[in-house]
Amino acid sequence: MNVLLLVFCYVASMQWAPSESVPFVIPWYGRWILPTVGQVWPKPQQQTSSETFFVLRPTMFQFQVVGERCDIIDEAVRRYYQIIFYPGDAGRIPLSYPPPPTPIQEHPQFRAFLDSVEIDLKQPCEYLPSADMLESYNIKIDTADNPLKATITSDSVWGILRGMETLSQLVYSSAETGVAYQMNATEITDFPRFSYRGFMMDTARHYMPLKTIKKMTDLLAQNKMNVLHWHLTDDASFPYESTLFPNISRYGSFQPFSHIYTANDVREVIEYARLRGIRVIPEFDSPDHTQSWGRGQPRLLTECYDDNGILKVPDEYGAIMPTREENYVFLQQFFGEIFNTFPDPYVHMGGDEVSYYCWQRHPEIKAFMAANGWGEDYTKLEQYYFDRLTTVTQEITQNQMRYIVWQELLDLNITLPTGTIVEVWKGDYEGLSFNEELARVTKYGYQTILASPWYLNYISYGLDWEKYYLAEPLDFNGSEAQKNLVIGGEATMWSEYVDSVSVIPRTWPRACTVAERLWSDRSVNDTALAALRLEEHRCRLLRRGFMVDPSNGVNFCEQEWDM
Amino acid sequence: MNVLLLVFCYVASMQWAPSESVPFVIPWYGRWILPTVGQVWPKPQQQTSSETFFVLRPTMFQFQVVGERCDIIDEAVRRYYQIIFYPGDAGRIPLSYPPPPTPIQEHPQFRAFLDSVEIDLKQPCEYLPSADMLESYNIKIDTADNPLKATITSDSVWGILRGMETLSQLVYSSAETGVAYQMNATEITDFPRFSYRGFMMDTARHYMPLKTIKKMTDLLAQNKMNVLHWHLTDDASFPYESTLFPNISRYGSFQPFSHIYTANDVREVIEYARLRGIRVIPEFDSPDHTQSWGRGQPRLLTECYDDNGILKVPDEYGAIMPTREENYVFLQQFFGEIFNTFPDPYVHMGGDEVSYYCWQRHPEIKAFMAANGWGEDYTKLEQYYFDRLTTVTQEITQNQMRYIVWQELLDLNITLPTGTIVEVWKGDYEGLSFNEELARVTKYGYQTILASPWYLNYISYGLDWEKYYLAEPLDFNGSEAQKNLVIGGEATMWSEYVDSVSVIPRTWPRACTVAERLWSDRSVNDTALAALRLEEHRCRLLRRGFMVDPSNGVNFCEQEWDM
Repeated sequence: MNVLLLVFCYVASMQWAPSESVPFVIPWYGRWILPTVGQVWPKPQQQTSSETFFVLRPTMFQFQVVGERCDIIDEAVRRYYQIIFYPGDAGRIPLSYPPPPTPIQEHPQFRAFLDSVEIDLKQPCEYLPSADMLESYNIKIDTADNPLKATITSDSVWGILRGMETLSQLVYSSAETGVAYQMNATEITDFPRFSYRGFMMDTARHYMPLKTIKKMTDLLAQNKMNVLHWHLTDDASFPYESTLFPNISRYGSFQPFSHIYTANDVREVIEYARLRGIRVIPEFDSPDHTQSWGRGQPRLLTECYDDNGILKVPDEYGAIMPTREENYVFLQQFFGEIFNTFPDPYVHMGGDEVSYYCWQRHPEIKAFMAANGWGEDYTKLEQYYFDRLTTVTQEITQNQMRYIVWQELLDLNITLPTGTIVEVWKGDYEGLSFNEELARVTKYGYQTILASPWYLNYISYGLDWEKYYLAEPLDFNGSEAQKNLVIGGEATMWSEYVDSVSVIPRTWPRACTVAERLWSDRSVNDTALAALRLEEHRCRLLRRGFMVDPSNGVNFCEQEWDM
Repeated sequence: MNVLLLVFCYVASMQWAPSESVPFVIPWYGRWILPTVGQVWPKPQQQTSSETFFVLRPTMFQFQVVGERCDIIDEAVRRYYQIIFYPGDAGRIPLSYPPPPTPIQEHPQFRAFLDSVEIDLKQPCEYLPSADMLESYNIKIDTADNPLKATITSDSVWGILRGMETLSQLVYSSAETGVAYQMNATEITDFPRFSYRGFMMDTARHYMPLKTIKKMTDLLAQNKMNVLHWHLTDDASFPYESTLFPNISRYGSFQPFSHIYTANDVREVIEYARLRGIRVIPEFDSPDHTQSWGRGQPRLLTECYDDNGILKVPDEYGAIMPTREENYVFLQQFFGEIFNTFPDPYVHMGGDEVSYYCWQRHPEIKAFMAANGWGEDYTKLEQYYFDRLTTVTQEITQNQMRYIVWQELLDLNITLPTGTIVEVWKGDYEGLSFNEELARVTKYGYQTILASPWYLNYISYGLDWEKYYLAEPLDFNGSEAQKNLVIGGEATMWSEYVDSVSVIPRTWPRACTVAERLWSDRSVNDTALAALRLEEHRCRLLRRGFMVDPSNGVNFCEQEWDM
């Protein structure tokens, strides 16, 4: 059997056309692409479908939990019923289908009404998504060994979640039959290519309200991404309300009542993500990018002197003061709280772009450098900072905390604890290719995630998703061992120029392409074919109530955004 | 008295700072600008304010119509009460002010509670905004000749509307007093620098639902722009449902039921705009950019032959067939309907980017060219088309129709009817500066509007509003008479890559800068000062319920978007 790839277009003069052909481009129309129908994004590893179809009836349909169950399953059942049958908020222009000309039962490809889908989890639920979670699943809809039935099977609750997302995307409205909820006989065996498929959200340059973070989390789940990397703080603001150190957000957030994340907010985000199989990894970038920490934590930052040894105007500070012993007490307590607040053992410690300017001019630091015989090599001081930071945080977490760091720490030859993950972000925008960066970084033996080619905050006029789609994490020159160290990657959306108004349309559907690169087989890299599925997927996400930008230029969705 | 320009910031360590100073930029924070408070955008021609303030109480406040009145005034009274006191939809994060430490009456600058604003229209209302409408107005709040009172005066209902917008922007929430609705003693004399201040919306490349068009119209009004140039049709689609020729949208829209504008939709847009003092000028671009017209109007377009005289595959057409007599009958009837549907006498006839490819290869056209002795000069044929088009449309409208055309018609030496307005759009993206284009075009003696520097669809990373703000329409080399021909300009948002999801944040606040350039005095051109007011205005529009992007990089609004 072949994959069913019928596409359609409502423009009256057009006819059914197979979508595996070259995209239907009318030159003077800009780019006008016929979306696929009922295709899955990201593309499953193996899929066969026939043209035989089932009809789903909202009033009859149910998910039947036949295996293990837990709150994650129960919530998913409720969620996906809604997503399949009543996807969006009110407000978009609906499209009325013509009634079918004859009873649907007489259609030659009609197989049956499908009133249930079995959810068959073979092993007990895990409570938390983790770096090691299994996400593979199978779907059988009317296969030889599962006739007239539909079943999602997995050994892991996370696989069940991914399978339910896939199933929801197999349901489509048919312009031929007029049926609103139709699904083809299908068999899918699916699993992710990479285990770390992340998205970095920056809530420091602009504050993002909880609703925005939750919508973002839904979109991650609906693209089978599994990590929300939460860049919580930066120079611009510190919106995390610490229990032990509430003064930091009090004086370092944009506004200490409205523009913060309380402990309850953080719990809400973590729980929302957990139920969708998404890990939340917070980043507390240090020792630099910490201006906002200083106001509420006096003496934390390095007072800045000018070249003549004169203290600069008040409020000018450098990175965290690395020679002040009390600061490591603070850091130990602070990261102890973070480790207890965020259930994932991984914490992103930052470490990027450390400026030595104020370090180099501070008398205490100069004395410290001299006493250690480090001369002018301030990387030694940075290494000292990270040695101390990892020591105190390992101490307070009984060696349970794991680290992600930006690549600079490796570039500076700083020794990192075993199990640390290095995030490669340089390359694409600095002349060196990210492949060279990957080749270099993986030589050190650390697990690696790639972000360089996926800085989605850099926008440009026209279509740019193809370059994100085609960025391949394993194209670098390196041994098999090196390639095995690349555990995934992530899209980033730095928020200097974007806030909750348009962070979602600016991220999506461009981030979909990263999701497919990291989930699907490496061979899935034909942009002409992807465009057809992306077009469908974009309209699907729009229909589900998410403000997702057009993906392919001139076109339309059956249901437009109308809020 | 000096303009009150106190600015504030909630970050606790910061203090009051006068905003006429250099913007408060913390280098490592990206760009962090302290917004003004209660400043007007676009900047009025003359304004004096004192620090004496009035307090407005929502339960007591009313507009008192003391002069002429009509539905436009009545609707504006209701609208601006809402905008001032209950500006936005639900859903954004509110900021709670601390209660004032002492009764507000004891504040040294407190003057009185202000429970009414007089609306004093000196002349009867006009029904429709027009090219000649007056928009000047005066505001006196506690002036020597209007003590303890507030009055908006104008000779024209359009001036009253502009004045009410200004008044609504003078009301601010004070972080110092804790008062939510406060307004300073102020005197304003205001009028627009240019009479045509437009925005072009493209509903052909992507369909824009009515709600989007209405929100756009509100935003035009709140930036004192006065023309909605509605680029209704193009190659990609024809969403206008014609009464006489319904087949055109039936076969030429993206979807003939959901993706069209019915006669009622069009009336709604026109009425919505009329009540806000905004003209609606439709564009039906021809003879090219008309692919979508052809399916429902057979024989309208030029059948396309290849170089060997072989008819190309079906459905390949060129511009409107200019030698087929029946087409002028169609055009006369169609534009007769348009003239009756849209009350403004001006219709934008397009005329840009006409390709001669199919004209040059059509046997009928070749014969026609030969019979007229035009050789290979197809501009003669284009001129013939426009001569015929203007003749038949003048005929059916009893010489009442007026035209706007893209600059190509002039570039090709096509003679245009007296009163035609030429829109300059070339220059900025083609090597030639728009100043050279303006100098050239105004020599012909036609009224001119400028769009070249304001193609807002071209996005780029980072801040780009300054270039729009600084584009000056009268900087070209030309006589005083030439400069007087420049009656204004417009921002355009071509929609190849944007639809209703993000057309508003992509347009705003960047279009605000065009609004100020076209309304305010030429001397208002300091971007550092404008940034402070733009920052306030952006947050104001956000608070009013519009999805408006950040304007100045890293920052925050008291109320963020939280939908």
